[in-house]
This record gives sequence, C-alpha cells and structure tokens, in this order.
Amino acid sequence: MRIIRIGVVGGTGYAGLELIRLLLGHDRVVLHVLTSRTEAGRRVDAVFPNLRGFIDQVFLDPANAPLNECDVVFFATPNGTAMHDAPALLDAGVRLIDLAADFRLRDAKEWSRWHGMNHVCPELLGQAVYGLPEINREAIRQARLVANPGCYPTAIILGFLPLLRAGLGRGGTLIADAKSGASGAGRKASIPALLTEAGENFRAYAVTGHRHLPEIRQALFQLTGEKVDLVFVPHLLPMIRGIQATLYVPLQGVEVDLQALYERTYAHEPFVDVLDEGIWPETRSVRGANLCRISVARAPGSDTVIVLVVIDNLIKGAAGQAIQNMNLMFGLPETQGLSMIPPNP
Amino acid sequence: MRIIRIGVVGGTGYAGLELIRLLLGHDRVVLHVLTSRTEAGRRVDAVFPNLRGFIDQVFLDPANAPLNECDVVFFATPNGTAMHDAPALLDAGVRLIDLAADFRLRDAKEWSRWHGMNHVCPELLGQAVYGLPEINREAIRQARLVANPGCYPTAIILGFLPLLRAGLGRGGTLIADAKSGASGAGRKASIPALLTEAGENFRAYAVTGHRHLPEIRQALFQLTGEKVDLVFVPHLLPMIRGIQATLYVPLQGVEVDLQALYERTYAHEPFVDVLDEGIWPETRSVRGANLCRISVARAPGSDTVIVLVVIDNLIKGAAGQAIQNMNLMFGLPETQGLSMIPPNP
Amino acid sequence: MRIIRIGVVGGTGYAGLELIRLLLGHDRVVLHVLTSRTEAGRRVDAVFPNLRGFIDQVFLDPANAPLNECDVVFFATPNGTAMHDAPALLDAGVRLIDLAADFRLRDAKEWSRWHGMNHVCPELLGQAVYGLPEINREAIRQARLVANPGCYPTAIILGFLPLLRAGLGRGGTLIADAKSGASGAGRKASIPALLTEAGENFRAYAVTGHRHLPEIRQALFQLTGEKVDLVFVPHLLPMIRGIQATLYVPLQGVEVDLQALYERTYAHEPFVDVLDEGIWPETRSVRGANLCRISVARAPGSDTVIVLVVIDNLIKGAAGQAIQNMNLMFGLPETQGLSMIPPNP
Amino acid sequence: MRIIRIGVVGGTGYAGLELIRLLLGHDRVVLHVLTSRTEAGRRVDAVFPNLRGFIDQVFLDPANAPLNECDVVFFATPNGTAMHDAPALLDAGVRLIDLAADFRLRDAKEWSRWHGMNHVCPELLGQAVYGLPEINREAIRQARLVANPGCYPTAIILGFLPLLRAGLGRGGTLIADAKSGASGAGRKASIPALLTEAGENFRAYAVTGHRHLPEIRQALFQLTGEKVDLVFVPHLLPMIRGIQATLYVPLQGVEVDLQALYERTYAHEPFVDVLDEGIWPETRSVRGANLCRISVARAPGSDTVIVLVVIDNLIKGAAGQAIQNMNLMFGLPETQGLSMIPPNP
Repeated sequence: MRIIRIGVVGGTGYAGLELIRLLLGHDRVVLHVLTSRTEAGRRVDAVFPNLRGFIDQVFLDPANAPLNECDVVFFATPNGTAMHDAPALLDAGVRLIDLAADFRLRDAKEWSRWHGMNHVCPELLGQAVYGLPEINREAIRQARLVANPGCYPTAIILGFLPLLRAGLGRGGTLIADAKSGASGAGRKASIPALLTEAGENFRAYAVTGHRHLPEIRQALFQLTGEKVDLVFVPHLLPMIRGIQATLYVPLQGVEVDLQALYERTYAHEPFVDVLDEGIWPETRSVRGANLCRISVARAPGSDTVIVLVVIDNLIKGAAGQAIQNMNLMFGLPETQGLSMIPPNP
Repeated sequence: MRIIRIGVVGGTGYAGLELIRLLLGHDRVVLHVLTSRTEAGRRVDAVFPNLRGFIDQVFLDPANAPLNECDVVFFATPNGTAMHDAPALLDAGVRLIDLAADFRLRDAKEWSRWHGMNHVCPELLGQAVYGLPEINREAIRQARLVANPGCYPTAIILGFLPLLRAGLGRGGTLIADAKSGASGAGRKASIPALLTEAGENFRAYAVTGHRHLPEIRQALFQLTGEKVDLVFVPHLLPMIRGIQATLYVPLQGVEVDLQALYERTYAHEPFVDVLDEGIWPETRSVRGANLCRISVARAPGSDTVIVLVVIDNLIKGAAGQAIQNMNLMFGLPETQGLSMIPPNP
Repeated sequence: MRIIRIGVVGGTGYAGLELIRLLLGHDRVVLHVLTSRTEAGRRVDAVFPNLRGFIDQVFLDPANAPLNECDVVFFATPNGTAMHDAPALLDAGVRLIDLAADFRLRDAKEWSRWHGMNHVCPELLGQAVYGLPEINREAIRQARLVANPGCYPTAIILGFLPLLRAGLGRGGTLIADAKSGASGAGRKASIPALLTEAGENFRAYAVTGHRHLPEIRQALFQLTGEKVDLVFVPHLLPMIRGIQATLYVPLQGVEVDLQALYERTYAHEPFVDVLDEGIWPETRSVRGANLCRISVARAPGSDTVIVLVVIDNLIKGAAGQAIQNMNLMFGLPETQGLSMIPPNP
Repeated sequence: MRIIRIGVVGGTGYAGLELIRLLLGHDRVVLHVLTSRTEAGRRVDAVFPNLRGFIDQVFLDPANAPLNECDVVFFATPNGTAMHDAPALLDAGVRLIDLAADFRLRDAKEWSRWHGMNHVCPELLGQAVYGLPEINREAIRQARLVANPGCYPTAIILGFLPLLRAGLGRGGTLIADAKSGASGAGRKASIPALLTEAGENFRAYAVTGHRHLPEIRQALFQLTGEKVDLVFVPHLLPMIRGIQATLYVPLQGVEVDLQALYERTYAHEPFVDVLDEGIWPETRSVRGANLCRISVARAPGSDTVIVLVVIDNLIKGAAGQAIQNMNLMFGLPETQGLSMIPPNP
C-alpha cells in the first residue's frame, strides 16, 4: 500500500493550515514538503502552536522546495499563484489541486476580467477539472489538475443542484443570499477583519459583484445547459467558521415533492445530508467536518422554494473537499481521513 | 412645559429595559410607574446593575400599580398581555403604546390564528394605529392606542417602501432575507439562546411561518392596495443587537434611478438614512441609535433590485420607535431624547 | 481483542455529549446504553444534529436502562446523581467513572457542606480514585470507581504540581485566577448564560466560594502533605470552550530553573505540553483536544512565579480525561481515541 | 458662556473616534480641528459611517492644521507623537491632553527604556499632571498639560487606592490580573487581532513586562511613598470593549471593614461606584459610560483581599477620562457630557 507524498504550497493561510491538520490524520499520506514564503525556515508548530506534538516539520521556501518529488501538490495560495507553477509540475508528473481560483473558469478572458491580470497558462483551463465530486466525480478520478471549488460556490451549487437537474427553477431568477464566517477572508492583517470591526456586526459586501459569481454561473450552466439568471449577495458573519446559504427558487406552478427530490438526489453522497422535513440546518452542525447539510421547504403562501445549505467553509468549502478530490484521484476510499464529527457546543 | 408621566409594564424584558434607559435620558418625561411581576419589590438597579446611579425606583406589581395615573403606558410584555389591560386604561384616559403584537393586525381572526388565542378586545383593533411614523405619522399624532411595529417589519417595510410607493416590484415575488441578533428572542431562559448554542453559529428559523409575516403583509398591502407575494426568512445571528434585511425585488424591465428614488423618499425623515451609492450598511452603524440605514443597488447582470437595511432591533425596532411615537402623540419634537450616536467599535 | 461496552448516563449535557462524540471515534468501545431522562425515546441524532450520520441510537430512560450489562458507566449527570446508582452498579461488577463531584472529596461532611445534601454512600468515598492521571496513574489502573476531576481543578493542579512537588511555594499564599468559557455552566436554560447576557461581557463569580475550591485544596494537600493557603477566583469568558488559569506563587528567595523544572516534570506525560520559554499559551491551542499546555515565568522585578495553563474544559477538563481514565482502567493505550488535533482558526 | 474650541489629533484610532463621538454630545465644546494623516481630506462620516448625520467635518492633515487656534488639543496618537508637538502648542497657549504615554512617567530614562526612543521634551515631564481625577483633581484643574492615564492603570490604581491609602497591603506583593477587550490594541491591521484569531480565544500577553507596568508602579508609589512589589499580567478577552482587573492584596492579619473603607473612599466620586457587599461587577455594566465599578471581598479562608474592578477601556480608560480632565481644566462641571447610561444587553 503506497503512501502518497504530499506538497502544500502556502501552508500559512487558513486553508493551507487546515489542509495540514487534516492530512496529519490521514493514514495514507505523508507531508513531504510544506512551503511558506513568509515563514520559511521556521518550524510549523512554532508558527501554529495548536500543532505542537503533532508535526515535526519546517516550512521551506517555495523557490527551492522539492515540489516535484511529490505525488500531489496542493496550492493554498492567493489567486494568481498556482498558475505560475502548474505547467512545470504537471510536466514533471505531479498532480495538482488548486484551492484558489486559478483554474476554476474555463474562459481565460472572463478569468482576466474578474482577477485583473492575464492568465499565464490558459491552455490548462480546458483540462482542469472542477473539483466538486457531487457533479464531477468520474472526471476527478482521471484528473491531473483539479480546480477546488470556492466555499460559496460549493454551498450554493449543492443547494440548487436537485432542482436544476429536475428541470425546475429555469427561466426565473435564482437568488443566493449567502453568509460566511470571517475565516473566509483568510489569514491577512486587515482592519475590517479585526475582532473590533467584524465582531458584533453584520453586513453585506461585494454586492455588485463577487469573484465567486462567474464560478457559480458556470457550474449552473453546466447543470442546465442554459444561462441562468443568478443573484448572489455575500454577507459577513461575526463568527469564525461556517457558511449558510439561503436560496430562493421560483417554482412557477410546478408540483413536486421537494423533500423526496432532495433525498433521492443525495441518497448515495457520503458528504451531503438532507435533513428531515421541517428541520433547518445550523452552521455548527457541520463545523470541523467535510459535510454539507441541506433543507428544502416551500415558502408559506408562495410559489417559491427555499433551500437552506450549510458547510464549514474551510473544510467542505476548501481543505476537506481538496482531500476528497485527492482520495478520488488516487483511488482511495472517498471518505478516507474525512470522518471528523462536528463538536457541539 | 408639562412633564409626561410614564408607565412601563414589563420592565424586565429587553425592550422594557431599553425603554427605561432611553426615557431616563428624555428631558420631558418622568418614570412614574415601572412594573414587573417577577421582580416586584426590588430596586430597578438591583435587577439591572448598569442602571446604578441613574435610577432610584422600585418595580411594582402590575396587579396594583397606579397605571391610570400615567399619561401614557408602554407595554413591553409578551404577546397577549396588553389586550387585557388596554380597555380600562384607555377608558381612564391613559394613552397606550404596545410594543408587543396585540394590536398590530386589523383582523382578529388572523391574529388568533397566528397567536393561538382569542383576542379579548377585537373592537380596539380598528382604532389602533400602526406606529411606523414613516407611513402613519399624522395618524400617530392623533392616536390613543399605538401598535408599535415588530423589529423585522420595521426594517423590511422601510426597505420596500420607496419601490412599492413608486409602483415598482408589483406582481412579482418580494423576498426578505432577514437576520437578527439574539436579543430579538428576549430575556427568557432557553437552551437555544445560550451563548454556547447561539454563539459561533448561524441558522434560519421559523422558515414556514414567522409571526411577523402577516404584519408585514398587512403593511405592504396598505402601501400598494394589492395583495403582495412576500417570502420572509428570518435567521439568528451570533451577536446581541442588530437586524439586517436583504430584500430582493424584481424590476421587470422598468428603468428607474434607484438611488434618487430612495434619497427622495427619505429626504425629510429624521431617522432614515440612505447611504451613498455603492456603500453598504452594517448593523453596528446603527447600534444604540434610533436609526435605519438603507442602501439600494441593482444586482449585477440581473433585473433584480437589492435593498440592504439595518436597524438596532431594540431601538428603531422597539423602544426607540416607541418613544418616537410618544413624541408624536404628545406634540414633542419627534427626535426628543433620541439623539444617541452609535458607538464604534 | 475485547470491545468495551459503554454506558453513558446523562447524555444530553455538554460533558455527556462530548463523551459520546469522542467515544464514537474510539476503536475499542461500543456505545451500549445512552440514557437521558428528558430525551428518553428520541434518537440521539435528532437531539444533536451534529451527530447525524455517525450514530444510530436512541436515548433510554435511566430508570430501566440495562446499565449493568456495561463494562463501564460514565455519569455525566448533575452533582448528587451518581451516588444513588453507584453501589448497585459496582456490586454488579460494572466500573464507574463519575464526571460530577459525587466522589471527589474524601470527607463526607465537607462534601455535604458544599453540596447542601447528605452523601448517600460515604463508604465509597474512600475507595474512589481521583482521576487525574498525572498524579494518580497507578491507582486509576486498579480503580473500580473513578472520580473524574473538575475542569478548574485539572488546570490548576497541573499548573501548581511541579512547584509544589519541588517543595516551592509552600507557606505562602497560592493564587489561582481562572477563566472559563460558558460551556462550563452546562446545557441548562438560564438567563445569565444567554448569548445576550454572557456575550461581550466578562465577570468574576462565586468569589467567596466555588465548589471546586475544596477539591483543589484536597489535591494540593495530597501533593504537599500540608494545608495550603489557596485563593481561587473563577471568571466567565464570553466564548464557548476553554479554561485559562493564571497562577501566582511566591518563590521566597529560592533560586530555581523554572523552565527546566516544568519540562522535566511533564517530560513523559502524553497530554501535558510545556511551552518554550517566553511563549504564552492560548485556549484555542487546546480546543477540541485532550491537552493541557503550560508556561511558566518569573514576574518582572518580583519574587513571584507566574504559571499559565490552558485546557479545553469539556475535554481534558471532562470527557477526554474520563476516556483517558477508562483507557487506564482497561489496560488500553492511554492515548487511544484521544489524538484529536486542535483546529485553527 | 464660552464654547471651548477642540482639536483632536489622531482622530482615526479608537480613542480618537470615541473622543469625537462623546464630544459631539458635549454642550460646551466645538470640534474645531480634527486631524488624521491617513484620512486627510476625507469626510469624518465617510470614514466612520456610524457618525453619518451627526458631523459635517473633514479630517485635516496634521502638518498644516490650525491646532493653535484651539483652546485644547487632545492627542489620540501612537506613543512618541504628542511629545513632538507639545512644546510649540503649549507655547502658543493651547492646553494639551495626551491620551498616549508620552507624559505619563516622570523619569525620562525610565520612559526611554520602555518605549525604545528618546524623549524629545523631558523638561515637560515635570509639569505634566497625571490625569486621574480621583488622585490628582486639584492639580488637573491648574494643568496646562495632562497625561491621560492608560486603561489598565486606571482600573488597577482605582482598585488598590482605598487599601493603600489606608496603609494596608504594604510590604507584601500586590497582584493585578487584568483582562481587556480587543479594542485596547487599537485600530491597526494585525493578524493576532483578527476576529478569526482573537475570537473564541483567551490568552495572557506581555507577561514579562507591559508598558503600563512602570506607570502603575509610579502611581502606587505616589499613593504610598514606598516602592511597591507589583505583579501585573494582562490578558486579551474575546470581546470588543471592557477591562476587568482582579486584584489580590495580602492583609497580613489586619482587621478592617473593607466594604466601609471602599464606600467611604469613593463616596463623593461621581464616576466610581462601589457595589453592595457580595455583588460582583461585570464589564457590560460600564460599557459606553465613564464609570468604574468596584467590589471588594475577603478570599474565603484566606488573609487575602480580592478587589474586582471594571471600566470601559475606551471611556473611563481613555476618551471619557480625557473629557473629565478637560472639564476640570476649564472649570466646567466634572460630569458635563459624560452622563451616558450603559446599555443592557
């Protein structure tokens, strides 16, 4: 039984840190190379004292780290980083999972428009697989380059999927009112993300255009074959982890057993849980776990479907999903290393 | 210059407590009677140490408190309480402001259906004035009985108002995705409201029917003269104070200068602030103040209007609005005692 | 390899719930009986949705649950509960770990004074072993009845231990300024524990006598053979999990290498981590894990030692330590099922 | 009745912002000059939306702002800033209140040692008055230059004062275990102050030497005429506002009525409230107000006094106290503009 050699580039952001923590509990991998520009040369557990006793490694400078000795490299870096290293690593036979946005859009022009820079390897966009196993499982198994979905897109796509696959909600406007904990903004010094600013406070942001918008639209197009009229408003929650998305879909008079539709759609998915009728999900019920929990209901006195979705933005919305993709790519059980039970309280 | 004698029934809930605190800073009133069943006989500042040094009174038992010596009595009691005392007090010439739901609906049957009890004085429903000054200012001035609006309805009605008055959004589905701090649930021992349960957590609740739904529908009907298709989903925020409502309205191809419409509508309102274009409100910008701040925008690439509204649920959503109503009823400047500036941070 | 049959009485409090969650990840046990008076008959995962997908059991009524079929029963009940069932269970050959205070004091009169009730089986107090492995490991291995330590005592005793064992700090006053997250108060409806009351707030409580005081004094006496002058002030933190204790010990002119003393004392302890000199612990670095992290320093310009200790009150301060005790009692590796890595953030 | 012209230098930190907010509610002042290097040219209410509707001014560049037109200038700047401007402003007849540490220590060498820079106007240290009215009221009335105390020192000195003035606690070790909300760290981008890092977390910091230590020692020396053995450990609370200090003082066998001593000492202080015996203070009971609330108790079974002190670090610990000082300097009622009642919840 082979042990997979792992590289993590950008191990000092929240997604990278969570990736390291979860991979330490994964029996089939070894953390071969961990890089950080800012912390190169320091012990990982000196930077992150929560890891004391669990890890013995030192962050390497990405400029001269032996990444091509790895079987797979995770990029947990800012947007526009992975694309610089991807071609060489892929040529060296290394598989690559990018947790940033570099390979999520198929259209290089669209990508440039949203990210304000040119894409340096647009030729790879076509071969990158969008790493949402619930829609692309087979392609992920074969993939050499996986674009790990954004946190909002994961929650929102999984919420709309059963309706759209059933041909419902088409033609009308789909609304995604999404709320995220502060860890979604990453581990970066910034005034708006201070406890004093983001605590005891709630607000919408990026109302007129969030970078996850084209990613969600592209996936909804994949599901429906049609351009979808999507409204997406992200909000910032005064807490650390968790995304909740409240979705509104016009039914347009169609009669359908929503509960049955959702349960049927996700009956065999290991990480998607459809709650019982009349029970609404809460973010803490998935905190720390690679889970998506969903409820569906009809709005009282209206022809609108309400879908409620929760994930942990750092796990099913980032590091956990990346490991789920890795498991698929390497023929491991999809749930390997991902059996964490959410704590309460 | 006459001093208004005030009674507060139910002074130990959050709305009653906030009412007491704000009225202590109001130059034209005296707190004549404060009642509490549970704390009768105790000094107010022994129950609420934040008030030490500011108040010298004792809670009275409501059963024998001289409420009819008051000019106005505020009921900050659970639903179904004020209706029992209202007829006698009104007969005694006392004016009444109910912060609960007893007089908010005009239809007694509808009221009974949502509250699970019969209304004991349905004849008063017709003469009660819905105390949202921005739509009923003149009626409030003449009112003897004011039904102070709910917190969600205040935010949501003020957000939809400019569009609906302008004839926009009609015929389509209006969506109100609302989020409230935990103080909205009141000062009641309960497991789901514990810090351990509601902290670091986010969830929707009452998805298939919240008691504020008929109240909002009734007000929207008053604005439009039409039955409105409204979807309302409330959520619980892991923080103490503040409501944010995100409203979605289909424009149906109409061209309109949204920013100008909103600014014009509220140009002369002392407590409604329309933010500059492209600026989104945050709940803390109104915390502790009798303010409603609003932004309006068009969703990118869509025909949907997004309206963002914030209030402090205990002030513009309860105690502050009640004082605003009292000021109107007694011919005082509408802003008297309501000039608090929100702290930051 | 035998599987240990577990009973958990009081599975709906936070300690019981955490016990269930951790035991679900323990390879050598099976949850045989879970009881709850309030939730008898309901599925565990209906009461605690975080467990959906991980557990298939139903809470039983403790009155007729087959607890004597178990190898070991954990009592995660209010104080004064386990003592009623302990004699019969022990007679039936069941081992017992009480997470409450029933068997923590050796003196029945002292126990009655602090708990306001008579002890119903004082004869068991002498045979109960105080379940702090770092001081009683061998006795725990032989124990049939373990009194699992309180959360504050665990942190405070582990903090004082190296100094007291070295004969330091005796004769002077030992001060323990301790701070706990709100989960320490349990899962009980109560106004002071509401998010609205305990959030954005900090206060001391039980200043003139907390029930953990005699328990700590008794353990310090065990360590020193002398009566210790201990001052203990607990405080409530506006967060969910974690205890931090700041200890102050007069050195009285003795020269000692504090860092070496602490490192040496805990060199072979699997769950106690002495941080490097000049590094101070934070509660989140142990959240979710059965860990105690400690720093020691000399106060600048003073003859006082400062010891900083953090634990997760629900794990090393309750459920995790109980499992550590069970492992010892049943000859399992002490760390079995307890290798959780604290998340960050 | 003359209106005092105010200058605020550094109006974009939390102390400066709070100063602006409170001064907007002060009837005898006008905000004449507000400066900010980073926000020069922007409207104050564009930077701080909570002030929309309350202020019409623009931040000026401190380099060319007409500060010498002011009657008094508040410096709410980083340490080492005010000392550069103080001599010229004082020469111009402007009075000065520094909220930073520039003029708090009388010994320039000690100051340099703690602040890592030379003091540029050591000759002013002797004429600066330490602005804690409870110990220096008369001197403040005459002062041209006031050094506003630090937040920790305010709480700790007020807590020790009655004992030390009564000659108690001398010779022994005084311990101050202090806890502060995150606003104490200021409005500066920094990773450790992010919600994701400081939320749901508690830790000590600066254990081996905080800059407030010499300031507190100097004040305790002023009270006692003796060098005091003080241990001071600051901790960071996962909340925004508030300081709680728990003080431990050895009584050394002296018999004294602690409650009477504290009540007598502060009987005529407008902003210090001694709670009733057996009642402990909480930080939210002073939030938003210029108040210090104190409890005193004897530790059970010990010869140690426990003093519990709470203040709002931004008000009695900074901006409010600065206004209290201004009121004294200008012969206004000491409480003018400082009658805010703490909200609850």
